[in-house]
Amino acid sequence: MKLSELATLTGARIETDAPDIEILGAAGLDDATNGQVTFLANPRYTPRVSATLASAIYVAEDAQIEKNIPVLRARDPYLAYTRALRLFHPEPEQEPFIHPTAVIDTTAQISQGVSIGACVVIGRNVEIAEGVVIYANVTVYDAVKIGRGSVIHSGVAIRERSIIGERVVVHNNVVIGCDGFGYAKDEARHWLKIPQAGRVVIEDDVEIGAGTTIDRASVGESRVAGHLTIGDDVVLTAKSATSHDVQPGKIISGIPAFDNRDWLRATAAFRRLGEMQRTVRELERRLKELDSAAEKES
Amino acid sequence: MKLSELATLTGARIETDAPDIEILGAAGLDDATNGQVTFLANPRYTPRVSATLASAIYVAEDAQIEKNIPVLRARDPYLAYTRALRLFHPEPEQEPFIHPTAVIDTTAQISQGVSIGACVVIGRNVEIAEGVVIYANVTVYDAVKIGRGSVIHSGVAIRERSIIGERVVVHNNVVIGCDGFGYAKDEARHWLKIPQAGRVVIEDDVEIGAGTTIDRASVGESRVAGHLTIGDDVVLTAKSATSHDVQPGKIISGIPAFDNRDWLRATAAFRRLGEMQRTVRELERRLKELDSAAEKES
Amino acid sequence: MKLSELATLTGARIETDAPDIEILGAAGLDDATNGQVTFLANPRYTPRVSATLASAIYVAEDAQIEKNIPVLRARDPYLAYTRALRLFHPEPEQEPFIHPTAVIDTTAQISQGVSIGACVVIGRNVEIAEGVVIYANVTVYDAVKIGRGSVIHSGVAIRERSIIGERVVVHNNVVIGCDGFGYAKDEARHWLKIPQAGRVVIEDDVEIGAGTTIDRASVGESRVAGHLTIGDDVVLTAKSATSHDVQPGKIISGIPAFDNRDWLRATAAFRRLGEMQRTVRELERRLKELDSAAEKES
Repeated sequence: MKLSELATLTGARIETDAPDIEILGAAGLDDATNGQVTFLANPRYTPRVSATLASAIYVAEDAQIEKNIPVLRARDPYLAYTRALRLFHPEPEQEPFIHPTAVIDTTAQISQGVSIGACVVIGRNVEIAEGVVIYANVTVYDAVKIGRGSVIHSGVAIRERSIIGERVVVHNNVVIGCDGFGYAKDEARHWLKIPQAGRVVIEDDVEIGAGTTIDRASVGESRVAGHLTIGDDVVLTAKSATSHDVQPGKIISGIPAFDNRDWLRATAAFRRLGEMQRTVRELERRLKELDSAAEKES
Repeated sequence: MKLSELATLTGARIETDAPDIEILGAAGLDDATNGQVTFLANPRYTPRVSATLASAIYVAEDAQIEKNIPVLRARDPYLAYTRALRLFHPEPEQEPFIHPTAVIDTTAQISQGVSIGACVVIGRNVEIAEGVVIYANVTVYDAVKIGRGSVIHSGVAIRERSIIGERVVVHNNVVIGCDGFGYAKDEARHWLKIPQAGRVVIEDDVEIGAGTTIDRASVGESRVAGHLTIGDDVVLTAKSATSHDVQPGKIISGIPAFDNRDWLRATAAFRRLGEMQRTVRELERRLKELDSAAEKES
Repeated sequence: MKLSELATLTGARIETDAPDIEILGAAGLDDATNGQVTFLANPRYTPRVSATLASAIYVAEDAQIEKNIPVLRARDPYLAYTRALRLFHPEPEQEPFIHPTAVIDTTAQISQGVSIGACVVIGRNVEIAEGVVIYANVTVYDAVKIGRGSVIHSGVAIRERSIIGERVVVHNNVVIGCDGFGYAKDEARHWLKIPQAGRVVIEDDVEIGAGTTIDRASVGESRVAGHLTIGDDVVLTAKSATSHDVQPGKIISGIPAFDNRDWLRATAAFRRLGEMQRTVRELERRLKELDSAAEKES
């Protein structure tokens, strides 16, 4: 792809007298080689620009670049570079195809242009919209709806009545819509399970990381099981779990999941939790000493 | 269902002169509409009773209700209400059925009234008792036993020699009886795996949340791998893990799992762990200042 | 097996005048019965030796044993005992066998002596080396390579281009090579996914616990997605997750995973995190009191 064409497709402004050079790929400052485009977003990495082997570089509007290298100016060079990566690594197209070993209930409605892998099992009254891709060994329970362009990876379970929006990506071994937590103790002190009449609703453009579980809403005293909703553009990172609504645009992590940035901080602190526990005990001890010294004085 | 009939079936005492009104469902105070029964368990919600649209209400024996609404008295109104929910939302019955794509070893013993979904794979010498339901894409290893009335959801793996009791519910993508952790370091500093000769035993009425793993017992110095036992009426919430025995009646959570109430407290604190770490450092710093101030004085 | 033979096979030196007694199994000090060998590694358990019913015992070179019992001396009695366990509990041999319900792309290369279970799905250009065992309901995406003697348990997903070394054991429902985390925010404040061109490389003799996920490398500013590598002899315990390289020989745990010993300490502290939070608040309060008392004095 010509540099000038790349600039147009990624929303960047070109600053070079060689707009026709060929760009074949994209890579980070240290990894890029001849023929590749790179980027500088964090000023901290500016010193590395001089050593890059890249043939062009995305930089911010106001960045000063001393190296003699074709420059692509963008308001957000990281975003422009991401667009370049997406051009050079397009998602593989799945041929529409229903594998003969897939087991699809006769009441299911499967639209045109759908790809369904081997050993996929699809229940009663399921609706699969156009362009959906379902990889092997997925189980779709009764009355599920999957919106157009969504991708369901292998080993996923989608429980009864769940609704999946459009362009949702569900990674491997995710469980959507399983029973949330809710029990009452009966007279014999056995747990009596509270039925969960609700469903999970995943809105559009959501991505759900591998091994994540999304329960139906758990039952509280002031409400009964209703719809648990994951808003548009939400990302749940791998191996997280939620049994609550998630607001649009959030990235959440953990079991139970909360804001990804807080989670990153919490998990960093967690690694040293044994140490922190010792420190707290030591602080307690020293404060007790201070207290008793103060008592003696008075 | 007539209100009087509902009262009898849920163990409540009726207080109304209209025992024949029809009740069609159950919902929380705020959500309930005409024709539904609701409940009041926590006195905190008493003010909401006046606004409910429900046609009847479960309350405690000593609760004062000023609203003019048919009342169902129960020792535990939450339990009575749970029973009502179960009446209005019965578990779907599975027809006994063995899907032709299920792969069942000829040595397996499958009782009457069993339902086995598509692409289920069942190993040698497995015993499946009456009324068991196994959803699609489950793998049952050799010599497993599953007790009557248990339900195994899709994507579950039950490893060799595991024993599952009666009325156990195993949610999607659970792993039961995988190898626990146990290694010795050999002379070349490679890990030498300790064989795990034990098995997992799940007793009756246990519920295992989606994505949970139950290892075989790990090996300690004073014992070798024996039977890991999950007692009657235990609940493991979603995405938990255990490699230890669990006492009957416990609800446990986490990786590794412990008492659910402690876990709820710990996960609430975990969200603010980054903050707590900063606080502890600040406390350390201030205590050091106090110490050196005290030193100067003396 | 004769005691003398067991000694030779486990690298121990025999100290008895009855080298021909038959040993039929191995068990811990308290569990061992007549005909079994046991071991003493931790001196703390020395008092239990007098009561063991075992017919022989592994002990350290310098251990003093007063009981009249045939002794097997070893530099590391725990290691020698592990070897005995492995002799008495050999891994079950899988017959080479490809189940007729397995769905194997015609471009895949399957070596001799491979065992592939029911409903396994294998993609394009996959290479499976000699002696590999793949249990039921596994999904292997395109262009994956699996090295000789590796074992893949049921429900595993191995994503495109992953490379698995030799003698690797992958337990149930593991996900290898799924997309790591990487997004840029576009002008409309939608998440734009950064394509992940890399792959996961698992080296030799690695063991991956059930329900674990290994992402492809996430993308940082100074590098693009390259190869995420799990080194030789690594153990990931059950339900852990990593999106970073792991050095050879490490045992790691957690989400995200770190050193297993630190993780054991951190999870022990985690159980009391609610309590620790209260302690820290109390320390803060008392320190504030001390500060204001000091202020009044001055």
